[in-house]
Amino acid sequence: MGTAPDPLLDALRACVGAPHVLAPDAPTAELEPYERDWRGRQRGRARAVVRPGSTAEVAAVVRACAAAGAAIVPQGGNTGLVLGGVPDSSGTEVLLCTRRLNRIRALDAANLTLTLEAGCVLQTAQQAAANAGLWLPLSLASEGSCTIGGNLATNAGGTQVLRFGNARDLCLGLEVVCPDGAIWNGLGGLRKDNTGYDLRHLYIGSEGTLGILTAATLKLQPQAAAQGCAWVGVPSLEAALALLALAQRQLGPGLSGFELMGQLALQLVAQHLPTLRPPLWQQWPYCVLIELSESAAPEQAHALVQTRLQALLQASLEQGCAGDAVLAETLAQAQRLWHIRECIPLAQAQEGLNAKHDISLPISRIPAFCAEAEALLAQALPGARLVNFGHLGDGNLHYNVQCPAGADAAAFLRQHEAHINALVFDCVQRHGGSISAEHGIGTLRAATLPRYKDAQALALMRQIKQALDPQGLLNPGRVLVRA
Amino acid sequence: MGTAPDPLLDALRACVGAPHVLAPDAPTAELEPYERDWRGRQRGRARAVVRPGSTAEVAAVVRACAAAGAAIVPQGGNTGLVLGGVPDSSGTEVLLCTRRLNRIRALDAANLTLTLEAGCVLQTAQQAAANAGLWLPLSLASEGSCTIGGNLATNAGGTQVLRFGNARDLCLGLEVVCPDGAIWNGLGGLRKDNTGYDLRHLYIGSEGTLGILTAATLKLQPQAAAQGCAWVGVPSLEAALALLALAQRQLGPGLSGFELMGQLALQLVAQHLPTLRPPLWQQWPYCVLIELSESAAPEQAHALVQTRLQALLQASLEQGCAGDAVLAETLAQAQRLWHIRECIPLAQAQEGLNAKHDISLPISRIPAFCAEAEALLAQALPGARLVNFGHLGDGNLHYNVQCPAGADAAAFLRQHEAHINALVFDCVQRHGGSISAEHGIGTLRAATLPRYKDAQALALMRQIKQALDPQGLLNPGRVLVRA
Repeated sequence: MGTAPDPLLDALRACVGAPHVLAPDAPTAELEPYERDWRGRQRGRARAVVRPGSTAEVAAVVRACAAAGAAIVPQGGNTGLVLGGVPDSSGTEVLLCTRRLNRIRALDAANLTLTLEAGCVLQTAQQAAANAGLWLPLSLASEGSCTIGGNLATNAGGTQVLRFGNARDLCLGLEVVCPDGAIWNGLGGLRKDNTGYDLRHLYIGSEGTLGILTAATLKLQPQAAAQGCAWVGVPSLEAALALLALAQRQLGPGLSGFELMGQLALQLVAQHLPTLRPPLWQQWPYCVLIELSESAAPEQAHALVQTRLQALLQASLEQGCAGDAVLAETLAQAQRLWHIRECIPLAQAQEGLNAKHDISLPISRIPAFCAEAEALLAQALPGARLVNFGHLGDGNLHYNVQCPAGADAAAFLRQHEAHINALVFDCVQRHGGSISAEHGIGTLRAATLPRYKDAQALALMRQIKQALDPQGLLNPGRVLVRA
Repeated sequence: MGTAPDPLLDALRACVGAPHVLAPDAPTAELEPYERDWRGRQRGRARAVVRPGSTAEVAAVVRACAAAGAAIVPQGGNTGLVLGGVPDSSGTEVLLCTRRLNRIRALDAANLTLTLEAGCVLQTAQQAAANAGLWLPLSLASEGSCTIGGNLATNAGGTQVLRFGNARDLCLGLEVVCPDGAIWNGLGGLRKDNTGYDLRHLYIGSEGTLGILTAATLKLQPQAAAQGCAWVGVPSLEAALALLALAQRQLGPGLSGFELMGQLALQLVAQHLPTLRPPLWQQWPYCVLIELSESAAPEQAHALVQTRLQALLQASLEQGCAGDAVLAETLAQAQRLWHIRECIPLAQAQEGLNAKHDISLPISRIPAFCAEAEALLAQALPGARLVNFGHLGDGNLHYNVQCPAGADAAAFLRQHEAHINALVFDCVQRHGGSISAEHGIGTLRAATLPRYKDAQALALMRQIKQALDPQGLLNPGRVLVRA
């Protein structure tokens, strides 16, 4: 005695072909990559997993779901951090995977644009640009599996934001399937277009709740001729800000990275990944990684980079905003310094579970925020350890709280995580910051958002959601909790 | 026997004080600056002119108008180019002037942000930044009278777009009064904030049809230590594109201007403004103005600029994408070259009326577009003269058509302007371009837009307008024609 057959499954098979539809009784090993959050925090149940191979097929799937009143959860590489792209446990949501939409449609070198489908993996897109001698300046830890559609749906950040902006700033056009199956063709490589409301920016960052991104046109850059790095120990956060201002003045738009790393973050790297040997961390409360990119003729660019970084370091040591500094002499040395920065999350994971926060603040408020939050945490949770690092040049901190040394991390989090989150987020709000800088809202922060977001902003968001998705079929409950 | 008194006038006086309300029977000299388009193409009649002095007063005015069912036309400096900010001739629209909202609210040097009210004149904002040793990189011809609110409502362009983007790219936050009088406080200086739909970008460029901008937070930059200019004669548009690609590779983000000027445009300058003496124009079909900005220590920056421009010119002469070149040796010489570029519209006005187009194209399509449009115009209107210039680095051309030499310009335009517009816009569409790059839609292009805009995009725009302004009170008929 099986359950009654689901007529929607047949409709979906008619849209995309039977091999590209998984029913709920498919083997777990096939379903799990779609239904399970990659960090293992949630295992949902989908009414169906459907993998369209073209924009027309996406539109057909959306129409079939709309006719059946079935909710749709769009998914790219399933690398999101806020549970925005996995189905809930109800078994009523259709998981629409975009990964078969993986064609590069056009690379226009003279226009510096790349038009490609939403399911293209970021690394594939980066490689397509590199093959043409160009550069797609979007880079993040999950680039080997995240997709362009997911990057845009969540307005991804990454390591190049300081110079090139967030994912939205790299996008010139979109193709979107709307909740009624209509297709908006907003592709195109125009840098200026003032012919009406900017729909592009509305869909970017809407986390699949307004439409399904099927393709995009991205801006490319010429490849930088040379890049260089300096690693600086600073005596305080105030000094780090002074160093940032000095670097912005002296290096101008060549300044392409300004990363902050707290002492405990580097101590965890030194402890768990000892071969990486982070420099200077024992003497200074914070270290900073500064990256400079230069164009110019390649034969001169490296020398120019080194000269300019040396001049910056000298000035910063003289002015007291740097305590000590290391200048990478070669590209390999520069990459080794970046690698230390990038390994902080890994070292932290090896130390154990922790309460993660992806927050942003006006840069000027960061010292006051950190002083206040640290004091409150020390008072509320004596011994709790603060792992503070992030993209200081963007005002973005990964402000993570780890249990006291030697304590049971899981038990600590079960007992205190809600309290820690409220303490950190309340403090962020007092300093004019955001509770989600890069990662988005998803379901993880949807219930929390109304406490921190302007009420009129939320009302406007609901009006827009109602207007563009009146049936509430697209990613319901993500970003905005169900009414 | 006068007309019946309008009760809305008393309500508005209660909102903002009697001195800040003009009734329709006020002296023409007082009404005209608000009711008349600055280029003299339209003289409307307002039901009232109201000048609120605070965000709360704007909200009160909006509520009073909503209660009376009166449409509102927001106006900043009245420098728009598409008749989007002047009342129609019905006498039913309330003109809401934002110019008394002119306070600088905060300058945060460490965060590189400026928060100010919508009625601040752009030049005042530029000066506020300069007083703090910083730079607001928004610059356009009307900067002495246009307002920040108008710049954002129309997503203004200008001369710094190549490096810093359009007005929307300079804006981190907004304060908006909605059509029901509710205030959205979206100010703040965050470079990353992924907490929901990007309302900011929806209001920017919506030309006052969704809400009234009352304040904004803008990004500032450190002042450039030095700028330099080169003026290059190029043998063809294809060569101009090759030169652009070379400049982008060699100069990287220091490339802050790349302006194209057709031979006829420069001939008009030489003829009507002979003291300006434009160089090289007689030998080459196009000239290009290249601007490089450098940070670095001020004492080295000038030499660095000159060295890099020299290297670019040498490479471009060797590769054949430049025919001849002039390098400005001093800042004064660089300013003189820019002045020639900026005087093209004036020289053209002295030559007489012309059909103006503010179009954009994928940069790679510009040579093909120009060849096709020029051939079509020559066939349709023998002797008509093409004044082609613009921001080539942004793909933005001011593609203007002047009557045959010696003909009656006004008669020519009356007879042919509609035909010329259709010919140019149809050609723009075939090459994937936009019929309004910088200027917007307003009422001037609202009826034309549906012919060239994706139908689904228009449908989405109407859904958003209906959701956010269900009574249709804000700037009705602008951007979207009345249903």
